[in-house]
Amino acid sequence: MPGQKVYIFDTTLRDGEQVPGCKLNTTEKIEIALALEALGVDIIEAGFPISSPGDFQSVHEIGKVVKNAVVCGLSRAVQKDIEVAAEALQSAKRKRIHTGIGTSDYHIKSKFNSTREDILERAAQAVKWARNFTDDVEFYAEDAGRTDNEYLARVVEAVIAAGATTVNIPDTTGYCLPHQYGEKIAFLVNNVRNIDKAVISCHCHNDLGLATANSIAGVISGARQIECTINGLGERAGNTSLEEVVMVIKQHSTLGYYTDINAKQLNPLSRLVSDTMRMPVQPNKAIVGANAFSHSSGIHQDGFLKDAQTYEIINPEEVGADGSKIVLTARSGRSALAHRFQKLGFMYNRNDIDVLYEQFLKVADRKKEVGDEDLQGLAHQYQERAIVA
Amino acid sequence: MPGQKVYIFDTTLRDGEQVPGCKLNTTEKIEIALALEALGVDIIEAGFPISSPGDFQSVHEIGKVVKNAVVCGLSRAVQKDIEVAAEALQSAKRKRIHTGIGTSDYHIKSKFNSTREDILERAAQAVKWARNFTDDVEFYAEDAGRTDNEYLARVVEAVIAAGATTVNIPDTTGYCLPHQYGEKIAFLVNNVRNIDKAVISCHCHNDLGLATANSIAGVISGARQIECTINGLGERAGNTSLEEVVMVIKQHSTLGYYTDINAKQLNPLSRLVSDTMRMPVQPNKAIVGANAFSHSSGIHQDGFLKDAQTYEIINPEEVGADGSKIVLTARSGRSALAHRFQKLGFMYNRNDIDVLYEQFLKVADRKKEVGDEDLQGLAHQYQERAIVA
Repeated sequence: MPGQKVYIFDTTLRDGEQVPGCKLNTTEKIEIALALEALGVDIIEAGFPISSPGDFQSVHEIGKVVKNAVVCGLSRAVQKDIEVAAEALQSAKRKRIHTGIGTSDYHIKSKFNSTREDILERAAQAVKWARNFTDDVEFYAEDAGRTDNEYLARVVEAVIAAGATTVNIPDTTGYCLPHQYGEKIAFLVNNVRNIDKAVISCHCHNDLGLATANSIAGVISGARQIECTINGLGERAGNTSLEEVVMVIKQHSTLGYYTDINAKQLNPLSRLVSDTMRMPVQPNKAIVGANAFSHSSGIHQDGFLKDAQTYEIINPEEVGADGSKIVLTARSGRSALAHRFQKLGFMYNRNDIDVLYEQFLKVADRKKEVGDEDLQGLAHQYQERAIVA
Repeated sequence: MPGQKVYIFDTTLRDGEQVPGCKLNTTEKIEIALALEALGVDIIEAGFPISSPGDFQSVHEIGKVVKNAVVCGLSRAVQKDIEVAAEALQSAKRKRIHTGIGTSDYHIKSKFNSTREDILERAAQAVKWARNFTDDVEFYAEDAGRTDNEYLARVVEAVIAAGATTVNIPDTTGYCLPHQYGEKIAFLVNNVRNIDKAVISCHCHNDLGLATANSIAGVISGARQIECTINGLGERAGNTSLEEVVMVIKQHSTLGYYTDINAKQLNPLSRLVSDTMRMPVQPNKAIVGANAFSHSSGIHQDGFLKDAQTYEIINPEEVGADGSKIVLTARSGRSALAHRFQKLGFMYNRNDIDVLYEQFLKVADRKKEVGDEDLQGLAHQYQERAIVA
């Protein structure tokens, strides 16, 4: 195998589904869970069972149908939450309970009106409760991004000692810069004595547009799981985009990592999630946006037609997108025009194209996009003129 | 002043406008240019004058109305391009010609069928031509992201010697990782003898979702200009988002940089560009997405209501967005429900809320979002029951 595996933990159905307007019913959740399994996701966070009867039901039903992926349920560091999560997960072949608590001083003081020592105890206790139901327990240190590293290391050591097999280091507010997040993970690798007993997980938010870079910085520093969502859905500006981290790891194979994601499913699954959740993906979204593989400027089109690699690092087919598009606009050049005419059956020499290009620009300055019917019109006029002359 | 200034070079009207469907007419371009100037952008790349008569006209008209910002026109390293750009810019108070050529082996071989030595000469020659028309000349080394650093340093040194005052290091294909892009800039800082005679500029693309992180890595390594677009518009997956890099620099003031951008204009300008170019911004877009400041999960809402800083690093007003939203869904908790009831004029104690919360979840499991009218219905039923009991 090429290098070390990075586990992909998808939370589209939990952190993504929290988004205003994205709520799904159980049938829709099952459809997406099966598609995530087909994509090759390692862990599916299916919901937050105590949050509502509908969500409990969804986690339970997903547990019944998913065969290979681990099914995960969220809980706070509260006994009742954990029991309800365990009950919802009874149907699952491979189950994980994800429990945790806020560890930054913001959270300890404002949210819990508590102390660091108390939070440390509650964290370890929650993991012990969860271990009564499964050997696969993940602990999240909420707002770890703004948690003091020394204290965070103590929390991580305590929860691993209590039985946590994965420790999740969320940058809950999306505040960290990549080098800061990477240093945080490195600090844990170097300062937590039992760190080899658990997988470190990155859970980043995109409030400053840095979620993908932060997750990759985490992996380079020693994390081996990334929590992410399809299309980067999630609270506020969203979570790390699954499609982006997967393709960074794939394109930069010299880093020495791989995932088990079947990249060809990325675009179909993006569309399924966007349609089901009614959450549009902007055209300029990396990997899955409608324009991600469109070339429109003349300089780019000319280079692309000579060798796709001049402007394209990913073959669209590799990620299940339609082929690269050459869109003719007022910024297109002669080579793209000649290429399109050729596709339409008109073989022109350089002199022909010079004349036609002037006509083309007049049309293009009026219209957003020049279509095949416009070109056929131009070709027709040009032929008539040639006959007259 | 707090630290060192980072110049913001906006290319919404050039690299953004190249996008399929985004073409603007001159009136629309002028409106956006004036809004960019009001935003505090240092340089406005207004177009690519030789590409079409309409674009020439737009650059010329923008030059007439912009007062403080530098107006920039793009050209290839071709004499005619540069002359036409200079002609279009005659109207501008402060003008910049942006010229350049591909420097990666992909570009040198596939696009130009040329050699490194020939490209080096053509690069320097283009800068000399441009200097005949203005003292403010920027050179772009296209596909610098995949250009060998030793050769790139030679090109940069030659163009600065020829008179370039800004050198643009584009990651044209969006391939670099942040540490790689940062190392590339650091290599130039350390190996180009006359580097202090020019400003280094970052021009990153977002094909792997890393444009913002790469630009910031470039600044940390010594670049002092970022090329970006409103909403991250641009060819394929787009360019660096102006709003993201500006807010990273603002939120991380300890890095020691600042920009002259008036952040309160970020959301109004995002809407103007989205409406004029008819390019939707996805709800989960950082800083300017409709949900960027929406809180919907119970855990987040509870923390947010106790202290906004638990889940929010940016005050929405700071970036001209509507206030933070608390959206009630099946993932909301008791504290958000009580808070909303209170806003509607219903003061309930903890026992009331326990009963009402069960009713609320039944509604919420059926609906995507629970509105004020639903809550008024619940309050009404609850009151009737209380009277009967």
